[in-house]
Amino acid sequence: MAAEALHIRSAVDRNQRILLARRPSGLPAPEDFATDTTAIPTPGPGQFLARTIYLSLDPYYCDLMQDPAGSLLPGDLMPGETVSQILESRHPDYRPGEYVLTRNGWQQYALSSGQGVRRLDPAVAPISTALGVLGIPGLAGYAGIVYIGTPRPGETVVVSAATGPVGCTAGQVARLVGARPVGIAGTDEKCAYAVEELGYADCINYKRPDFAAELRRACPDGIDVYFDNVGGEILATVLACLAPKARIVLCGTMDSYRSVSPLPGPTLRPLISARATMTGLVVDDYLDRLPVLVRVVGAWIQSGQFRYREDVTDGLENAPAAFCRLMRGENFGKALVRVGPEHLGTPATASRTGQGGR
Amino acid sequence: MAAEALHIRSAVDRNQRILLARRPSGLPAPEDFATDTTAIPTPGPGQFLARTIYLSLDPYYCDLMQDPAGSLLPGDLMPGETVSQILESRHPDYRPGEYVLTRNGWQQYALSSGQGVRRLDPAVAPISTALGVLGIPGLAGYAGIVYIGTPRPGETVVVSAATGPVGCTAGQVARLVGARPVGIAGTDEKCAYAVEELGYADCINYKRPDFAAELRRACPDGIDVYFDNVGGEILATVLACLAPKARIVLCGTMDSYRSVSPLPGPTLRPLISARATMTGLVVDDYLDRLPVLVRVVGAWIQSGQFRYREDVTDGLENAPAAFCRLMRGENFGKALVRVGPEHLGTPATASRTGQGGR
Repeated sequence: MAAEALHIRSAVDRNQRILLARRPSGLPAPEDFATDTTAIPTPGPGQFLARTIYLSLDPYYCDLMQDPAGSLLPGDLMPGETVSQILESRHPDYRPGEYVLTRNGWQQYALSSGQGVRRLDPAVAPISTALGVLGIPGLAGYAGIVYIGTPRPGETVVVSAATGPVGCTAGQVARLVGARPVGIAGTDEKCAYAVEELGYADCINYKRPDFAAELRRACPDGIDVYFDNVGGEILATVLACLAPKARIVLCGTMDSYRSVSPLPGPTLRPLISARATMTGLVVDDYLDRLPVLVRVVGAWIQSGQFRYREDVTDGLENAPAAFCRLMRGENFGKALVRVGPEHLGTPATASRTGQGGR
Repeated sequence: MAAEALHIRSAVDRNQRILLARRPSGLPAPEDFATDTTAIPTPGPGQFLARTIYLSLDPYYCDLMQDPAGSLLPGDLMPGETVSQILESRHPDYRPGEYVLTRNGWQQYALSSGQGVRRLDPAVAPISTALGVLGIPGLAGYAGIVYIGTPRPGETVVVSAATGPVGCTAGQVARLVGARPVGIAGTDEKCAYAVEELGYADCINYKRPDFAAELRRACPDGIDVYFDNVGGEILATVLACLAPKARIVLCGTMDSYRSVSPLPGPTLRPLISARATMTGLVVDDYLDRLPVLVRVVGAWIQSGQFRYREDVTDGLENAPAAFCRLMRGENFGKALVRVGPEHLGTPATASRTGQGGR
């Protein structure tokens, strides 16, 4: 079959890409990335071409970049989840103009066979949420609270990285099932936002010298559930405040990215005295529950009970700096790069007819 | 009422006791203990006097000795569980001659009001087992496997300190419920005993330089359950070999006694990737299950399917050296001090009539 197409690219357009230049030792730096351009590929039978709108920046890319086994080699395209729009399709199930969740990686255009692709309906929620609270990060927060932490009404649920897409989902789900969420974040501004916008009962800045005392004050009955996004010193401080039979969800270890060799963990004796349980969460185990997340949290978003924040950087060329900022914890909300506009039509090359094709 | 009595003590007998002399920094040394003698006390109404037969040596005493909050102060009697025989009784429920589990501490004689006392039947099992496999250590091993580790038939269950009273119970219960136990111990002699006598499928000496490789070889399908008695480096090595959805029972942290300040724990990233669960076990939570242990493991002992080993030191005066040996991991089997003979009668002061009084 012939390709259907949105007529939006000129013959001179090229595909800008960002590659791994070298393996970082510790936190990544802009020099660890390189840029190139290639021709925009043409879809073969069963494929479609999509343009990247939003590129998701996620800490786990750092694992791949640092992996000594070579998951990612210098010269490789940086991988990543993206929200894209289909431009040309020779795939029977996808039409030009449709919005899809793809893994285009750090580039402007990519082909897809449709595998692992999820169609997005802009009427349900803004398409960017498919990379955040209604996507994998939201699913991690939701599954960690609902399936592992299982807070009872009134129990104290502490969430680190409280304002990010994982943490804000964990904290708000905890609140909406009747628990008392207490956040941990790295700036006073984030803490204020957590309480005022996200509905945390309290939020403690872990960079303050009295962090341990403040956390204890905010959790007078001890911590029943801890959703851990960071590991390290913060985890050690939380362990000292556990309530009996506490549940700890180990979701991320931001702390560990600072060093290529594994950092030691906290002393585990408080885990024994509290008879606590610590469980590792890998979000892949819950992918079949994504529709539940979209239905439950989607409704809360529409009713105004659930909020989220995005930290959007414009331009693919700025993705390396934005990623380094994320890894330093300087983002505020879900880190996204806007690679292209949500709606085509303003540029002279765009065709309104094509848009109507969806 | 008048005291009934076994006429076994002469007027000149004194009560030998061992006290904490000073708080140890790290592992205890014999100089941390002191000895004194006092008069043998006389039971008042509702009390009985018991002579100590076996004194249990348990690593957790070290917590009390080191506790900066002063659970135990210099000059205090060293506390400890004991198997004793009642000599004189003004308690309505206890008769002279009866064997009881008591908390006499590190001394030859003590009064009791009967609180927390358990009567022992020498016909069920040797009375010393009330301090080991049929007592608190056995209960820890049993509860950790049956209620937390919950191995399925064929699953690999790794047990550290495999030949001690906790570990030998955990390992043999695992075997008897159909799992495949693999031990970790500190000498080749202990490893051989674990396999030949206790029925472990394999046992690895953690002091060998190729420990990690040997453990991996012994657990080709990964470790489904880990019963941890030690923490530290051994725990870190086990975490690197976890099977998906592994369960880790944190029971003891022998390793932590080496230092007064808390040691860091292992890196927790393998816990996440294995989706593993780590749970702290405090045996006090399972005291109501002690009769289950006595019935189940008692039957296995009688049928010859379950074995145990005791490391008995004679003479209360040798308790400090024996305790230091235990804390260095140099004991082989449940560490006990024989403070007095099981059966009175050989000394001229003993009365057979009294013995018959039970």
